[in-house]
Amino acid sequence: MSWITPKKAIMVAASAEGGTKLNAFDNALLKMGIGNVNLVKLSSVIPAHIEWIEKMPEVPIGMLLPTVYAHIESDEPGSTISAALGVGISEDNNGGLIYEYSGYCTKEEAIEMVKKMVEEGFRVRGWKLKEFKVVVSEITVKDKPAAALAAVVMLPY
Amino acid sequence: MSWITPKKAIMVAASAEGGTKLNAFDNALLKMGIGNVNLVKLSSVIPAHIEWIEKMPEVPIGMLLPTVYAHIESDEPGSTISAALGVGISEDNNGGLIYEYSGYCTKEEAIEMVKKMVEEGFRVRGWKLKEFKVVVSEITVKDKPAAALAAVVMLPY
Amino acid sequence: MSWITPKKAIMVAASAEGGTKLNAFDNALLKMGIGNVNLVKLSSVIPAHIEWIEKMPEVPIGMLLPTVYAHIESDEPGSTISAALGVGISEDNNGGLIYEYSGYCTKEEAIEMVKKMVEEGFRVRGWKLKEFKVVVSEITVKDKPAAALAAVVMLPY
Repeated sequence: MSWITPKKAIMVAASAEGGTKLNAFDNALLKMGIGNVNLVKLSSVIPAHIEWIEKMPEVPIGMLLPTVYAHIESDEPGSTISAALGVGISEDNNGGLIYEYSGYCTKEEAIEMVKKMVEEGFRVRGWKLKEFKVVVSEITVKDKPAAALAAVVMLPY
Repeated sequence: MSWITPKKAIMVAASAEGGTKLNAFDNALLKMGIGNVNLVKLSSVIPAHIEWIEKMPEVPIGMLLPTVYAHIESDEPGSTISAALGVGISEDNNGGLIYEYSGYCTKEEAIEMVKKMVEEGFRVRGWKLKEFKVVVSEITVKDKPAAALAAVVMLPY
Repeated sequence: MSWITPKKAIMVAASAEGGTKLNAFDNALLKMGIGNVNLVKLSSVIPAHIEWIEKMPEVPIGMLLPTVYAHIESDEPGSTISAALGVGISEDNNGGLIYEYSGYCTKEEAIEMVKKMVEEGFRVRGWKLKEFKVVVSEITVKDKPAAALAAVVMLPY
């Protein structure tokens, strides 16, 4: 088990409303299955040979999990907000890159932004992009504060 | 000993002035007993069965401590700023939630905000709120930059 | 090996352009030798008896490294931006302090700011400042987004 170089990762995204912006953020985390853990924010590199999982495992309440996330909250009725993470995986799974974007935009625009960033990140490193993956969430604000989140959660085991 | 799921926690708050906003922040940390450690910012869940302590233990200079904190700095004379953390503990101490608020407001307003957030957090989880605790600090800016902080510091042992 | 109280540290700084602000940030990290790790942001205290190194060691891709950093990004042509970290070392290497500054300013102005902050930090603690070190980067924006970064990266071994 190693907190220092994570072994597994999962991509999740959700949007939600709440009584406050922070509660909307919290409610989105709950939908993503990570509302009862502590996120430790990371910059954005995927360890080599990480195993991608599909379902968030059971972990202790309050466990510290290294996480790359993009988020945006708004309480402006009629606004559409989106958060996206673009993940580029290198050949032979020798590491990868994560880029984040969030803003007052549609999910298609957010995806476009992270795709462009992943491509530049690979180009400047001279890495070959084997696979591009994206998680994105979008919500149009109504009468309550809303949040859009996207995350890559890393697990030490 | 585990950095991954903290074992103890302490609630602290203070306000201070300083030569710059960052020094005011630093001076408040010193008053709180955490000026000589490295805070690693967390999102906001309390592990199950955590032990709450009253006094910050002696720890090595520069130790990394997972911490939830709210802070605000200002250099606008006459302004009142406050930072609060609201902590909700569940029945049987099976986990808890921390919500933060900081802004140009009184400490009573900051407490009101975090109380409302904690109540919503418990309601959406279907958890029963056994105890609500709060730490808050407030300061009215005079002629020097000032900071208000509130923190829940977690300890691995 | 200890993630909890780092053993070594290195000071690095760089500026870069990129296709987006985040790519500019990423390109500066690459120049600093830390583009392929995960930075975990710290507040700003140097453990006692830390060993300062000059060259970033080889570490696994995606390793989590506790890092104090200052950064600024801009896409306003003609603007000069700078990021600096000032490091104060105490007598006998019994700990130190790091203060950050970034803004629309020259590197000389950024250095001036962090020097002032380090001096106040030592004065309020009653510590004796043995040595002041600084890392700084500066860039004037042309036709592409640009970033200036300065970092103290800590290593667990």
